[in-house]
Amino acid sequence: MSGFFSSRWVDVPDSVTDLGGDELAPGFIAGGAAAGIKPSGGLDVGLIAGPAETTSAIRLTASSAPAAPVLVTRERCRIDAIQAIVVNSGNANAATGRPGLDEAARMQGAAAIATGTSEDRVAVCSTGVIGVQLDGQAVMRGVLLAKSEMKRDGAQLFQQAMMTTDRTEKRCRIEVELPDGTVTITAQCKGAGMIQPNFATMLCFVQTDAVISAETADLLLGVCVQRSFDRVTVDGQLSTNDTVIVQASGYSGVEVEPESQAEAIFGQALDAVLRQLAIAMIADGEGAARIGRVIARGGDGPAVERVARAVANSPLVKTAMNGGDPNWGRILQAVGGALPGPQSIPVDIAIEGTLVCSAGAAVPVEREALVAAVSGTEVEYEITLPGGGYETEVLFSDLGHGYVTINAEYTT
Amino acid sequence: MSGFFSSRWVDVPDSVTDLGGDELAPGFIAGGAAAGIKPSGGLDVGLIAGPAETTSAIRLTASSAPAAPVLVTRERCRIDAIQAIVVNSGNANAATGRPGLDEAARMQGAAAIATGTSEDRVAVCSTGVIGVQLDGQAVMRGVLLAKSEMKRDGAQLFQQAMMTTDRTEKRCRIEVELPDGTVTITAQCKGAGMIQPNFATMLCFVQTDAVISAETADLLLGVCVQRSFDRVTVDGQLSTNDTVIVQASGYSGVEVEPESQAEAIFGQALDAVLRQLAIAMIADGEGAARIGRVIARGGDGPAVERVARAVANSPLVKTAMNGGDPNWGRILQAVGGALPGPQSIPVDIAIEGTLVCSAGAAVPVEREALVAAVSGTEVEYEITLPGGGYETEVLFSDLGHGYVTINAEYTT
Repeated sequence: MSGFFSSRWVDVPDSVTDLGGDELAPGFIAGGAAAGIKPSGGLDVGLIAGPAETTSAIRLTASSAPAAPVLVTRERCRIDAIQAIVVNSGNANAATGRPGLDEAARMQGAAAIATGTSEDRVAVCSTGVIGVQLDGQAVMRGVLLAKSEMKRDGAQLFQQAMMTTDRTEKRCRIEVELPDGTVTITAQCKGAGMIQPNFATMLCFVQTDAVISAETADLLLGVCVQRSFDRVTVDGQLSTNDTVIVQASGYSGVEVEPESQAEAIFGQALDAVLRQLAIAMIADGEGAARIGRVIARGGDGPAVERVARAVANSPLVKTAMNGGDPNWGRILQAVGGALPGPQSIPVDIAIEGTLVCSAGAAVPVEREALVAAVSGTEVEYEITLPGGGYETEVLFSDLGHGYVTINAEYTT
Repeated sequence: MSGFFSSRWVDVPDSVTDLGGDELAPGFIAGGAAAGIKPSGGLDVGLIAGPAETTSAIRLTASSAPAAPVLVTRERCRIDAIQAIVVNSGNANAATGRPGLDEAARMQGAAAIATGTSEDRVAVCSTGVIGVQLDGQAVMRGVLLAKSEMKRDGAQLFQQAMMTTDRTEKRCRIEVELPDGTVTITAQCKGAGMIQPNFATMLCFVQTDAVISAETADLLLGVCVQRSFDRVTVDGQLSTNDTVIVQASGYSGVEVEPESQAEAIFGQALDAVLRQLAIAMIADGEGAARIGRVIARGGDGPAVERVARAVANSPLVKTAMNGGDPNWGRILQAVGGALPGPQSIPVDIAIEGTLVCSAGAAVPVEREALVAAVSGTEVEYEITLPGGGYETEVLFSDLGHGYVTINAEYTT
């Protein structure tokens, strides 16, 4: 047991068993190699591949300054049938113009040959510094080396090849009991702290041996990403390279049909995996001492969303959380700033279930109890605006000295 | 000469002479006292008053969680004829509900009696911790003490009574040559770092002996605030207590008539004063080593504004600036994140006049020269989006360890 599911904010369905280990879902092999792109000399090129029948679904960054690999994957790849993925760390291949696109295309071609598939079935992912040309020779070397390392229990190699300053490996291997049999889900993830001292990126790859169409995978991935990676923030910064890919080999022979019970159970399991990975990412944000969850409720949907984001991204809220200070005045300030206007809004604020502010005014609370409430590794804030019908959440890391150290002092 | 105008981003008109000193514009007296609201024992209650004929203009926070003094000033004060202002530091009187409104009203009444005016001609301002009831007894004591200290050269006392963790006094006394004679402008300002370890607020008070109607003062203040306090950010956090007030005594006998040359010159001088004060505020942001100016241009006005704000508030950009790192990849990332969409946007980025990114792709630049360019106390970034017709700027402080230390470790 690897103890993958560690957050109280993840509902782990009874159908799920945490297996742990380095093995990938049946049908997949992966490898990683050190090609000299990272100055540290660590693993920096990874490959993963499934069988010819692999189906897939993908989500890419919404940034209007997308990196070359994102463009190549989006425009020159059958995103419903991604058989192989090639990833490098140490260089984001972003803001690299035409030469960068050429390198990403070459990377795609090399990975296709190495894994025995066609170019349009290879997704390309990069993470690292922006604005520096990628060393194509090194990537080619890395692809060849990684290919020779590919194996069924290659999850750790593949994980390490995409890590940079991540403090922890973020991956899992679980079994899901469906009505007609058992399927496996494996996943590897990096981010979303400032992974490379120069930039943040999140990458997440999921494999399963379920029989699942690309359409169903896309539907489930869309729902699950909305409840996981779309709801977390380290510093409110959208990356040029964010990529999430699900691949299904079908090797279990167990079908996940649209609108079936199997689909619901599989979806719940995928949801638990992505939520836990997303939480693991923010817990690994630089300098993070604890993570928070803000739940916002009210009658105005866009306002509820704006308030949740404003609180989660407020440097005042984040530094207070880092210091274990139950200073809810900063939450009220963030709410008031997020909803400018001449009307005072009666806001309720609760910390770990204790009401501290009612209709915008302080509620007398024992300070000691509040300090204890915010001293854990997970802190929950509830914000209630007038009206009802809408509720959302954002999970976030705090802001501590480590963030400044990595992003200000590390000036390579 | 106090050397008030220190930023290259402020155009100081030829009509302006920097006088320095503690004297207020003719017609005004001010004082400050230590009433025991601040734990440090420093000055924490201030009073300023002009003659009966004083005209005024005001701008208040747009927060929908405004503090009690903001509500009292907005709703129970003739904002075009503010004769006196009472301010306290050490407690924001925010999120204090009905009792807080009562305290603010009492403060208004006490200041009216102390300065010999009517309640509805007294503005009330507070700054400090949120969610703690204001000690009304201490405020009354402070008003009485401050009244006994009121004098023509009381600018420093008044300034100190509103400071909390400000490292520098931010005030000036200038003379402006108008066609029909000379007028004086004095101003005192605090913020916008996390002044009280629990909260950020900016307050700014301006006095002049010009003869100027409330309408003209309001017009000029509106324009000047848009070019100063509306264009700066320390951490993107809107305060519950922000207040800017201009008061005119008319004692010089020199008129500033609407649409006259005098109005234009007076407006330029006020603009220079508020811009320099706004810049002094962000330079005094906690932990700030340097300040930045981002200029954004393009054909889509809202996009230009969004991009400028996103860059100025990006913790990645701010930490890089703190570390003297010319890492423009983070600027591109902030731009891309601010304008999500499937289209890549061709962005140009220049640092101190040197083009580093053209149409979204890196331009080869000598790194040494760039490092030198970002090592000064003021760094300028230009961002050009497609199209033309819109240009805006945001001035911002960087993000360093001091910010985290004050806001995370100081847990009173």
